[in-house]
Formats: sequence, C-alpha cells, structure tokens
Amino acid sequence: MSQIGINAFRLLEKIRKQKPVIHHLTNWVTIYDCAQVVKTLGGSPVMAHALEEMEDMAGIASALVLNIGTLTVDFVEAMKKALMVTNARGIPVVLDVCGAGATKLRDDKCFDILDTGTISVIKGNASEIARISGLSVQTKGVDAGSVNADARATAVSLAQARRCTVAMTGETDIVTDGKRVYCIKNGHSMMANVVGTGCMAASVIGTFAAVDEDVTVAAVAALVCFEIASEHAVQRSAGPGTFTAKMLDALYDLTQDDVIKGQKVTT
Amino acid sequence: MSQIGINAFRLLEKIRKQKPVIHHLTNWVTIYDCAQVVKTLGGSPVMAHALEEMEDMAGIASALVLNIGTLTVDFVEAMKKALMVTNARGIPVVLDVCGAGATKLRDDKCFDILDTGTISVIKGNASEIARISGLSVQTKGVDAGSVNADARATAVSLAQARRCTVAMTGETDIVTDGKRVYCIKNGHSMMANVVGTGCMAASVIGTFAAVDEDVTVAAVAALVCFEIASEHAVQRSAGPGTFTAKMLDALYDLTQDDVIKGQKVTT
Amino acid sequence: MSQIGINAFRLLEKIRKQKPVIHHLTNWVTIYDCAQVVKTLGGSPVMAHALEEMEDMAGIASALVLNIGTLTVDFVEAMKKALMVTNARGIPVVLDVCGAGATKLRDDKCFDILDTGTISVIKGNASEIARISGLSVQTKGVDAGSVNADARATAVSLAQARRCTVAMTGETDIVTDGKRVYCIKNGHSMMANVVGTGCMAASVIGTFAAVDEDVTVAAVAALVCFEIASEHAVQRSAGPGTFTAKMLDALYDLTQDDVIKGQKVTT
Repeated sequence: MSQIGINAFRLLEKIRKQKPVIHHLTNWVTIYDCAQVVKTLGGSPVMAHALEEMEDMAGIASALVLNIGTLTVDFVEAMKKALMVTNARGIPVVLDVCGAGATKLRDDKCFDILDTGTISVIKGNASEIARISGLSVQTKGVDAGSVNADARATAVSLAQARRCTVAMTGETDIVTDGKRVYCIKNGHSMMANVVGTGCMAASVIGTFAAVDEDVTVAAVAALVCFEIASEHAVQRSAGPGTFTAKMLDALYDLTQDDVIKGQKVTT
Repeated sequence: MSQIGINAFRLLEKIRKQKPVIHHLTNWVTIYDCAQVVKTLGGSPVMAHALEEMEDMAGIASALVLNIGTLTVDFVEAMKKALMVTNARGIPVVLDVCGAGATKLRDDKCFDILDTGTISVIKGNASEIARISGLSVQTKGVDAGSVNADARATAVSLAQARRCTVAMTGETDIVTDGKRVYCIKNGHSMMANVVGTGCMAASVIGTFAAVDEDVTVAAVAALVCFEIASEHAVQRSAGPGTFTAKMLDALYDLTQDDVIKGQKVTT
Repeated sequence: MSQIGINAFRLLEKIRKQKPVIHHLTNWVTIYDCAQVVKTLGGSPVMAHALEEMEDMAGIASALVLNIGTLTVDFVEAMKKALMVTNARGIPVVLDVCGAGATKLRDDKCFDILDTGTISVIKGNASEIARISGLSVQTKGVDAGSVNADARATAVSLAQARRCTVAMTGETDIVTDGKRVYCIKNGHSMMANVVGTGCMAASVIGTFAAVDEDVTVAAVAALVCFEIASEHAVQRSAGPGTFTAKMLDALYDLTQDDVIKGQKVTT
C-alpha cells in the first residue's frame, strides 16, 4: 500500500502547485475551519451562497462542497442551483450529509439534492450514510449514532445505488465507488471531541477531488493526509481546544515521508 | 460550600456520561465556540434554525439555548417556534439577552420571547439584566455598561417577576431563583477581553441544566466549572488570542479536585 | 518616519482608553476574528445586520465596517441602510471589497454601495482595488490575482475618483487619499496562508479611524500595528493554524517600542 501514500502526497503537491478554487455552501458553525483547511492545503476557498453569483463561481471553481449542517429551505435552493451550474461544467461535487437522520427536513433535503444533480462523493458518518441508504437508524444530533447494518455493505450499496463514491468516516473510514473498497485506519479518537473535524474532512476531499479525475482515489488520499495531520496534532496539543490549530499547522508542513510512513490503508 | 463543588463535579460527570443534545439558536459570531464548549463538556451540540426542523430537534434535545446576539426578525420567529415546541416537552431553556439595551429591537424581542413561553434561565451581564428588568440603563454595544441599581436586588427582582432563574455574569456572578441567591467569584478579568466568553457561559448553563431538574443549582455548577477552567486558561495562555483554546483544554480535563478546591461560591 | 510610529501608538492608546464601538456588517467566515481583533485592540465590536436596529447602532457606534465576503442581495440592502444612517452621523465607514472581480454580483454591489453614500476607506488587495477602479483584472476567488496596471497609480486614481482613502494590501501596502501616498512594508508572507487576515485588517482600520479624524493617517497606523503584531506571531507560531491566536496575543501586548522600532513606512 505504499503506492497509496506516494499517490496521496503527489496529489497534495498538485494542490499546492495548482491552488484550486473550492467553492463551498456550507454550515455556519465550521465555515472558518472549512475555509482554513482548504487554504492550508494550498487551495483557494470561496464561501458564497448568493443565487446571483452561483454561475460565476462555478466558472472559477475546481470543486464544489455542499454541507447541510445548518440548512434552511432557501439555503438548499442555493445549493441546488450551485449543483446544477457545477454539473454543467463537469467539476466534482462533495455532499456532506451532516446530521442526516436527526430530522425529517435533513433527510428530505439530502434526497432532494441527490435527485437534483450528480454528486461525486457522499460523505458522512456511519449513521448518516445508513440513513441516506434508506436504512432505519437513530441519529443523535449531528454526532454518530448506532448503525443497524454492516457499515461496509451499506457504503458499497449506497455507492452503487447513487453511482458515486461514498466516504464513510469513523474509527475506520470506508471509501468506495461500489466496486473498490478502501479502509483507512488513520486518525485519532480525540477528533470526535472537536467540532468541525467531519466538515473539514469533506472540504479536504473536495480539494483533492479538484486535482484528480478518480474521485475515489482522491477521497482516500484526502482522508489519509487529513488524518495523519490529526494524529500529529494530538501529539502536539493538550485537548480539544488546541487540536484544530495544531492540526492545521501539521497539515501545512506534511511531508512525503509523513504520508508514506503514516498511511494505514487496506483494501 | 464544598458541597457545591462536589455537586458541580457530579453534574459534570453526568454530562460526560449522558451526552445530552443541546439545541442552539445562537449568534453567528460565537457559534463555533458555543458548539465546542458543549462538546468539550461531553454534550452533543446541535445548531439548527430552520423552522421545519424545530419539532424534530426538540424531540432529541435535552435543553435549548437561545442567544439574540445577531438577531433578525425572522430568526426570532424561529426562536419562538423552538421555544414553544421545547416547552411542550418540558425541557429547560436558557435565554442569553446578549446586547439588550443596545437597541430597541433587542429589548422588544427579548420581551417578545419572554412572553411567548417559559424561559428557565435568563443570562446576561449587569446592564443587560437591568434592562430586561425594566430599569433604565445604558448598554455600550454588547459589552457591559453601568448599572443604576443594586445588581443583586435587580437579579432577584427579575427572577421573581419572570418566575425563572437569573444568571447575571460579571466580576461576581449572581445566580438566583428569586429566593436563593448564589454569588460566584470565580473567573478572571481577561475573560472580558475575549469574544464569546459570555455566549459560552450560556451554552454551559444549558448543558448543566440538561442533567439536573434544579436549574438554579445547575447554573451555579455551570459557571463554577466554566470559570475555573477560565482561571486555568489564563495561567496557560499569553493573551486573549490563545485564551479560548486553552480554556477548552482545561475544561476537558477538569477534575473533582479542581472544582472542589477552586470554587468560590457564597450564598 | 519615527513620527509615524509614535503617532500609530498614540492612536492605539486612544483606542484602549476610549473603547470605541465598531459596528460591522461583515462576512460569516471571519466574523469571529473581526470581532476579536477589535476587542483585542481595546474597542467594542458589534456585529448587527437587522434593518430594524441600524439606526440605534449608528447612534452608539464610532465607526462602521462593511465587508462583502459572503454577500447576498438582502444583506447588501442592510449594508446600504447602515451606510446611510452612519453617514448622517458623520462617523467613518470602511468598505472591504472582498472578492471583487470574482463575480458580477460582487462588482455590481460594490458600485451600488459606493454610490449610496460616503465611504471613508476602501480596502482590498491589488486585484480587488483594480477592479473597483474599473480596470479589467482577473480575480481568483477571494485571493489576489494579477494586476494589469501599476498598483500605486491605481490606488491613487481610485482615491481621487471616489474622494476617499484607499488601503491596498499586499506585500507592500499602499495607503493613499489621492494626494499623500504611504507604503508599508510590514507583515509577513504567512498572512496569505491564513483566512481572515484581510478581513481583520479592515476591522483594525475601522477601529483606528474611530479615534482620528484623518482616516488616511489612521489607516496607516492600523496596518502598521496589525502587521507588526503579525510579524511577532510568525515568530511565535508554527504555521497558519496557530497564527491568528498568537497574532492577537501580540497585538494585545503591543508596546510603543514595538511600533516605533518595527514600523517600515515610506512616503
């Protein structure tokens, strides 16, 4: 699997060189973190939700990241507009189904977005992905609940049904396009105590997807780099308050050696 | 008063074990801090303001926190909806009257919210609480102004008039249900230089109120834990920029010993 | 130029003493940073965008800061209302033309705001300022693009055309009222890797403008202090994640000696 580390770092270098614009319609809680993680990677974040500029933004963006964490009906309409103009240009779109299962509105709007256009990567934790797969699960707010199904099979099944890549995050992340399945054991339990780690993961996936046509490989590379930086951060920080700042510092400095030696990916 | 320290830590342990969902309709400036402080305590924050999901959110939440810091007319309508469905389920509600006295809109909307349903805890600084009590005061933006009345009497009088608990924060915090009065001398003057300390205090009160039926006792416990962590943070940080991260680290690690030895509560 | 350092610190002391209220209608990404940088200087930030409280806020504010970073049509209407009531009271207004050139909406709304009332300081990077000057440039998202014109001449020309002060930030900042031109070589390239440095610069300019009638001199003083603190932060931090917290700590502690010895201003 050292090839995966080599490739992950190659994509990171591509981001640092190409500085892709990553357009976000995201939630209001972690919007700074999402922007900063993209900039730290070397990308150029744009957070814009006015209907009137969706077309122009799609014209300069290399990927779109949608996150329903603090959705409203109007905001989802802006997301759908962004999705349509982005699809017309053929650039990748990541949908973070943040909080799916918590309310009927969130479920309905996820399906609404998925039915509106082509999503390249659906990202969520096990209970969120299960819910979007149509399984009956209990989501406790925006945090992970229990999953009444085999997580891996659920991810594969959703990827096949929606013809996209699924990135299911957790202690072990599962990334699959319905055929290939990658398991990533990087990261640290402290991440569950920090608001924004999930949202940042989606933004990182979007940034990697901007520089590689194979969004599944890009999503694996993204999670590997993000989670290795997170492991470094746990070593350097003293708790959930200082974690994100230290993670961003680590991500900024991430070397090929860090990625190759640090990656824990199996297929 | 060592009983207060023992009880405060008992509630903190209850939060860490029960992981209550704390639903917020809060301001856009400090929304991350409010979410992170709840998560750091061990709770599960949800920031959601779409009218269509208020009912579902009330179904999974153990407390509701309202904060008018960046209010609009529409946003207050969502708050009122949240308050009504939350009241129907009998769970505690904290109202942070952030910036009351600064504009007529803020005053009017505070009264509108207070008249719409049952608020368990009104939280504000001395000038905000005085304004909500109907006293004539000058609020300088969202920071504390001067109070033309005895702070303690004002807090007691408001608690009696509104049949709720009042948490008036300042150099000495006053928490009262109109009969019992607790004075908390924890905290540090540096907190006044950090945006978000007041908003986080309201979120912490909401989280403690979620695990104890006596919201007055819960509010005292909340402020004691939050402000002891803040005292630790001042020792570990070099100014207002690094304060919040260090405070969250300290809060995450807070021990029974810290709370029992650190608490400065009088009645 | 030691006079400039002496004057810059004199204004900083005035802020610390007078604690001016700085009213913002700003973007949702960096709203916390904008509030905290004002508070760190010693000012009192207010972030308020409800149409109904614009008049009251203008009554207590000493400066207004507008930032179009996450604009919508409705939000710009609130900005225009704020501008009009603020102009009626004669207090300074800073406009951060964040992302101008990226979309037609941003350009149109910048011109709309500029045509609605009197702006004291237009702040932007070279490509944004060029766009607002009517030059044809390419903006890459909200980050700096290339400028097809001499930056200094562009800034002077815009200041003359709009009868205001222009603060064009970059490796060398240019501050001009169309007659006087100041070049500031403080700051550090790391700032380009941190989301919010540009927005904070606008808030700092607003805070200094609140305490000096000569907004050009105030803008120079603001950038000098902010960028010297940023230089200190780079020494104390390990990357873009820890930068802002360390910069705020440094700004809080900034001494006369730091400013006089650190300033790199030429005319």
